[in-house]
Amino acid sequence: MPKVTFYPADVTIEVATDENLLRSAMRAGVHINASCGGSGVCNKCRIIIEEGEASGERLPEGGWKACDTYPVSDLTVRIPVESEMDRGALARPAATKAASWIRSFGEAFKWDGKPAVHKMVVELPKPSLNDSVSDLYRLRRELAQGTLPDVSLDVDSQVLYELPDALRCGNWKVTVSLMEGGKPDHLRLIKVEAGDVMSEHLALAVDIGTTTVSVQLLNLNSGEVLKEASDYNPQVSYGEDVISRMEFSRKGEGLKILQQKIVECLNSLMDEVLNGAGANTEALGIVSIAANSVMTHFLMGLDTRYLRAQPYTPVATHFPPVRAGELGMEVPGHVRIFPAPCVASYVGGDIVAGVVGAGLNRSPELTLFIDIGTNGEIVLGNQDWMACAACSAGPAFEGGGIRHGMRATTGAVEVVHIQPGTWEPMALTIGGRKAKGICGSGIISLLAGLFTAGALDQQGKFNRNLRGERIRPGRDGWEYVVVEAESSATGQDIVFTEADVENLVRAKGAMFAGYLTLLESVGMGFEDLERVVLAGNFGSYLDLDQAITIGLLPDIPRERFFFAGNSSLLGAKASALSWQVIRELHQVAQMMTHFDLSDNARFMDHYVSSLFLPHTDMSLFPSVHPAP
Amino acid sequence: MPKVTFYPADVTIEVATDENLLRSAMRAGVHINASCGGSGVCNKCRIIIEEGEASGERLPEGGWKACDTYPVSDLTVRIPVESEMDRGALARPAATKAASWIRSFGEAFKWDGKPAVHKMVVELPKPSLNDSVSDLYRLRRELAQGTLPDVSLDVDSQVLYELPDALRCGNWKVTVSLMEGGKPDHLRLIKVEAGDVMSEHLALAVDIGTTTVSVQLLNLNSGEVLKEASDYNPQVSYGEDVISRMEFSRKGEGLKILQQKIVECLNSLMDEVLNGAGANTEALGIVSIAANSVMTHFLMGLDTRYLRAQPYTPVATHFPPVRAGELGMEVPGHVRIFPAPCVASYVGGDIVAGVVGAGLNRSPELTLFIDIGTNGEIVLGNQDWMACAACSAGPAFEGGGIRHGMRATTGAVEVVHIQPGTWEPMALTIGGRKAKGICGSGIISLLAGLFTAGALDQQGKFNRNLRGERIRPGRDGWEYVVVEAESSATGQDIVFTEADVENLVRAKGAMFAGYLTLLESVGMGFEDLERVVLAGNFGSYLDLDQAITIGLLPDIPRERFFFAGNSSLLGAKASALSWQVIRELHQVAQMMTHFDLSDNARFMDHYVSSLFLPHTDMSLFPSVHPAP
Repeated sequence: MPKVTFYPADVTIEVATDENLLRSAMRAGVHINASCGGSGVCNKCRIIIEEGEASGERLPEGGWKACDTYPVSDLTVRIPVESEMDRGALARPAATKAASWIRSFGEAFKWDGKPAVHKMVVELPKPSLNDSVSDLYRLRRELAQGTLPDVSLDVDSQVLYELPDALRCGNWKVTVSLMEGGKPDHLRLIKVEAGDVMSEHLALAVDIGTTTVSVQLLNLNSGEVLKEASDYNPQVSYGEDVISRMEFSRKGEGLKILQQKIVECLNSLMDEVLNGAGANTEALGIVSIAANSVMTHFLMGLDTRYLRAQPYTPVATHFPPVRAGELGMEVPGHVRIFPAPCVASYVGGDIVAGVVGAGLNRSPELTLFIDIGTNGEIVLGNQDWMACAACSAGPAFEGGGIRHGMRATTGAVEVVHIQPGTWEPMALTIGGRKAKGICGSGIISLLAGLFTAGALDQQGKFNRNLRGERIRPGRDGWEYVVVEAESSATGQDIVFTEADVENLVRAKGAMFAGYLTLLESVGMGFEDLERVVLAGNFGSYLDLDQAITIGLLPDIPRERFFFAGNSSLLGAKASALSWQVIRELHQVAQMMTHFDLSDNARFMDHYVSSLFLPHTDMSLFPSVHPAP
Repeated sequence: MPKVTFYPADVTIEVATDENLLRSAMRAGVHINASCGGSGVCNKCRIIIEEGEASGERLPEGGWKACDTYPVSDLTVRIPVESEMDRGALARPAATKAASWIRSFGEAFKWDGKPAVHKMVVELPKPSLNDSVSDLYRLRRELAQGTLPDVSLDVDSQVLYELPDALRCGNWKVTVSLMEGGKPDHLRLIKVEAGDVMSEHLALAVDIGTTTVSVQLLNLNSGEVLKEASDYNPQVSYGEDVISRMEFSRKGEGLKILQQKIVECLNSLMDEVLNGAGANTEALGIVSIAANSVMTHFLMGLDTRYLRAQPYTPVATHFPPVRAGELGMEVPGHVRIFPAPCVASYVGGDIVAGVVGAGLNRSPELTLFIDIGTNGEIVLGNQDWMACAACSAGPAFEGGGIRHGMRATTGAVEVVHIQPGTWEPMALTIGGRKAKGICGSGIISLLAGLFTAGALDQQGKFNRNLRGERIRPGRDGWEYVVVEAESSATGQDIVFTEADVENLVRAKGAMFAGYLTLLESVGMGFEDLERVVLAGNFGSYLDLDQAITIGLLPDIPRERFFFAGNSSLLGAKASALSWQVIRELHQVAQMMTHFDLSDNARFMDHYVSSLFLPHTDMSLFPSVHPAP
C-alpha cells in the first residue's frame, strides 16, 4: 500500500488506493476542513500534493480535492493553512486503533465440536425371516448395541415416514441426526438419511434486532462461517421502535403480520446464504436465534400485551426448541429453532447471547457489558455472578430524538472534527455522499468535539460569545451548523442543537447512572472493572476517547475496553455450534439478577449527578479536561 | 316375563314379550323346522298354543307361525310332529349360557384413577413490580413449590399462546393438563385453562378393526363410559381385506386416501359421541387407539410396502404419543393419540390391547387368548411370559371363501339346527329377515350340526346315502340346502358346500395347530390351560360346544372358557383410563415372543393332523362322539 505523509503534522500512514485522502487524513488524525461530509461539493478540502502520483480531481485554484483524490504511489501531502488545524488536538489514532476487539468466537471459545444436533453413520444388519423386527427397532437396537448404549432415545414421529426408504436406499447404511434432549443421556432422533451424508451438516445463527436482522450460515463439521447476510427488519414498516410495534400487534391481525414479516425476512436471508454456499435446507440441523424480548415474542407469535404495561411480564423467558416449520420457516420438519432465553422485558435474548458470546460467563474477570441501543442494557459480573439492568437511555445515540439524527446509512455524517478557533468542521459521511443527517458515531463526535473545543460548556450550552456562521441561535435554542444547506442532500442546513445535546446528556446520564448503580449494589467501583465490553455495531464506530469525554463510558485505562461487534450474533453462532453454549445461555439467563432501575432511588441520584459533561464529580474523569 | 313351556320336550323358559317363539324355542333347545331363517315365508314353523294368550299370526290350517308369535301371558306350546325333532340332541342351553364372559374392565381392573393426562387446579400470586417474572415461570415456580416439587416439566410451545389470557381471565387460578412423559418424574404441560375446569376431562377409546371401527367416550374423572358408537371402516371401499388395501395404498395417493378415510371416520364417530354427551373437543385429553399392524400403519400414514412382503417388517411397532391434529383429527393441538404397540406384522395393537384388556398380564393363570379373525391370532401365557403367533387361518370363519358366506348383518343366517333323520333345518337370521347368506356363527352351527347329525363324516364329506332335497350334488361337489330359493332374499338356494367345509376344516386346523405348537414350545398341553379367552365380537355369538365339536376349540372343561367381547376396545378403554395400563401395553408387546408359524415344521405336522373333524387324534376330544 502507498505511504502517505501529511504535512505540517508530519504523520505517515499506509493508505489503500481506493481510500480518498480526506478519509485517510481523518484516520491519521489530521484535520482538513470539509463541511460537505466528503461529497465533493464544498471544495473546502484543498490539499497540495508535494511528491508522488495521485489520481483524482484537481481544483482550478491549484491543489486537489482531498475527498476525491486517491494515492497511486507514496505521497507527500501538505494541508494549506486554510484547511489546517491545531495538530495537538488530534494527536491520537482513530477509534478502532485505540481499543482492542473481542477476539472472534473461534479464538475466545475453544470449540468442543459438539452442536445440539449431531450426525452419525449407522450400518444395520438386513432383515430376514429370523430377524424381522420393525425398521425402527432395528435402528434402536443397533444404536443401543453400538455407540449409544446407555442413551434413552426419543423419536420424532416424522422419522417414521423417511425411515423405510432411507434404510433400503442406503442399503442399510444411514446417517442419523440426533438432537440433545435437555436431560443427560437423552437424545431425540430427528432425521434419518440414506447412506453417509455426514458432510452435509449446517446451521443458521440469527440475530434479530429491532432494526437489523443478521444471519450466518455455519458448517457444523468445521465451525466455519460459510456465508453471511443481513437486512433491515421489515417490521420497521409497522413501527420504528418496539413500543409502536407492540401497539400495532394489538390491532386486528397485527401480531400475525409482524410474525409473518420477520419469518419472511428469515426465509429470504436463509435462501441468500444457502444459495451462496450452494447448499439446501435439508442439510440444516439448527437455527439458533438471539433477539430481544419483544422480537422473541413476535417471532414466536406471542402476545406482548402484558410485556408492554406494568409490571412488564413476558409470557415466557426460556423457550423449548421449536419446530422452525411451525413458525413458517421454509425448512424440513426436523429443523428446530433454539431461541436464546430472555431475562426480563428489557433484558432479552440478545443480551444473554451477547454476554455468552463475549465469554463473560467463562471468565473470572469482573466485566461490565454495555449495549448502547435504544434502552441501554448493561450487565455486570463474571463466571460466578451477574447483575443486569436496562437504563431507559432512549434512542438518542441511534439518532432518535435528535433533530437531524438518522440511522447509520449512506449520507449519514459518521465522524466530525471541529477546529477550535474557526469552529470549522471536518465531516465525513458514509459512502461519501451529500449529507442527509447525522448517525450515532457522528453525534458523539460532534458532542465531544464541541465540548473539547470549548464551544459547549459542562451544562451542555453553547458559548454565546462564539456566535457566528457556525454557532447561532436557531429554532430550538442555539445550534451548530454541521453542513450548510448548499452542500447537504436535503437543501437545508444540517444542524446540531442544544435540545439535541440535552437529549444526549440525559441518555448518557442514564447509562452512567446504571453502571454506578450496579457497581454499588455489589460494593464495587470503576477501579474494580477488569474489562468493559461494548456490544452492538454501534460500538464498532465509536471513538473511545470521545465517548469517555462526554461521560458515556467510564474513564478507566483504555486497554480494558473491548468492542464485541454484534455480540448477539456472536452468541447465536456460538450456541449454533455448541450444545454446551446453549446450556450456558440458559444458565446465564437464570443467574442474572435483574435490577429494575425505574424503581431505584440510588439510580435516580446517580442520574441527576450525571446530567453534566462529563459528570458533576470530575474526579470520576481524571483524563477529561474541559476547555478553560 | 311370561313363562313358556314347550311340549313334548317339556322345557320351560322365560320369554320377553318382544321375542318370537321360534327364537325362544332355539334358546330353549327345542327344534322347530324353519328353513326361511324366521322371516315368515316358509310357513314350516307351525306351533299349537295349548294354554295362555299370544299375539301373532295364526295359520289357516290352525296353530300359529312361531316366527311371528309373541307371548302375552304364560304359555303352553306344543310342537306338532312335523315341526318337532328328537329331544336328546338339543339337550343343552344356548351358547351364551354355556360360558362366562370376561367381566367388564371396571371389575377386572381396579382402576387407579390415573390417566396419562391429568388435570390440576393451580392458584398463582399476582405479578407486581417486585415479582414480574414471566407467566410461564410463575406457573412453573408454583408447581415446583407446590404439588410437583421434584418433577421435571416440559412445556408444549402451544401452551404459551393460551397462558397469558388463561391466567388473567381466571384471575390467576388455572387448570393445567399434565401428560405423563414416559420417564419417571417427567411431566409435560400440554394445556392451561382459565379457572377450575376439573370436571371437563374426557378421553376417547378407539378400536380400529379392518371391518369395524368402535369408539367409546370416557369420563376421566369417573372412569365411566358416557357414549359409544361404531361404524364400518370406510377403507372397505378400497379393499375388503388388509392385503388388498395394502395393494391400494401403493398406487398414487392410495395411502393418503386410506389415512384420510379412517380419520374422517374417527372424526365422525367422535362428533357422534361428543354430541350425544353434550361435550366438545376442548375437554378431550387422550385418544387411545388399538388397531392391527396394518390399520395402525394406515392411521399413521406409514408405508406398508415392507410389511406386506417377506420378511414382513413393520416401520415401527412402538409409537410415541402423536398429536391427533397432525393426523387430521379435528381436535385442539394438545390432544394426543396413544397408539397401542404392535408385535409383528400380523400380531398388532389390537391383540396387545386385547391381552391387556383381558388381564392376561396381571394374572398367574396360564391363559390361551384366541382372536378368530382373518388371521387367527393367538397368545399363550400369563403375567410372567407370553408367546404369540398368527395362524394364517384365513377368513373362512368370517364368511370369506364360503359360497354363501357373509358378514354378520341383517339377513345372515346366524344359527341353524339340523334335525337328524329329516335333515330339516331350524334356521334363524339376524333381524328375522329373508336369508341373504350365512355368517360366521351360522357356519359353525351348520358344520357342527351336519357333523353331529351324521350328514358329514370326519373327512368333511357328505354321506352320499342321504341324497335328497336337502343333501345333493351341486356345482362345487355335494352341498346342503340351508334355505330354499323361494324363501331366500336372493331368489336362489342358500347352500353350504363340501368346498366350504374344506375351507373351514383348513381354517380350524390352522388354529388348532397353532394352539398345539405354542403349548408344545413351552412343554405344556391343553390340560395345563387354566383359561381360554375368546376375543372379538365373533366369540359372543359362538356356540361353545359346536366350536369344540368341529375342533376349532380344545375340548377342555367348559367353565375355563371366557368370551371377552371386543377385547381390543376393552384394552383401548383401559389404557385411556390409566397411564399404568399404557405402560403395560408396551411391556406386554415387548415380552411377547413371536413365533413365525409359516416357517415352523411342528406347526405343519399339527396342521395336517388337524384336517379332520374334530381331529385325527380323537383322544384330544373326549367329549365329542361322531354319529355312528
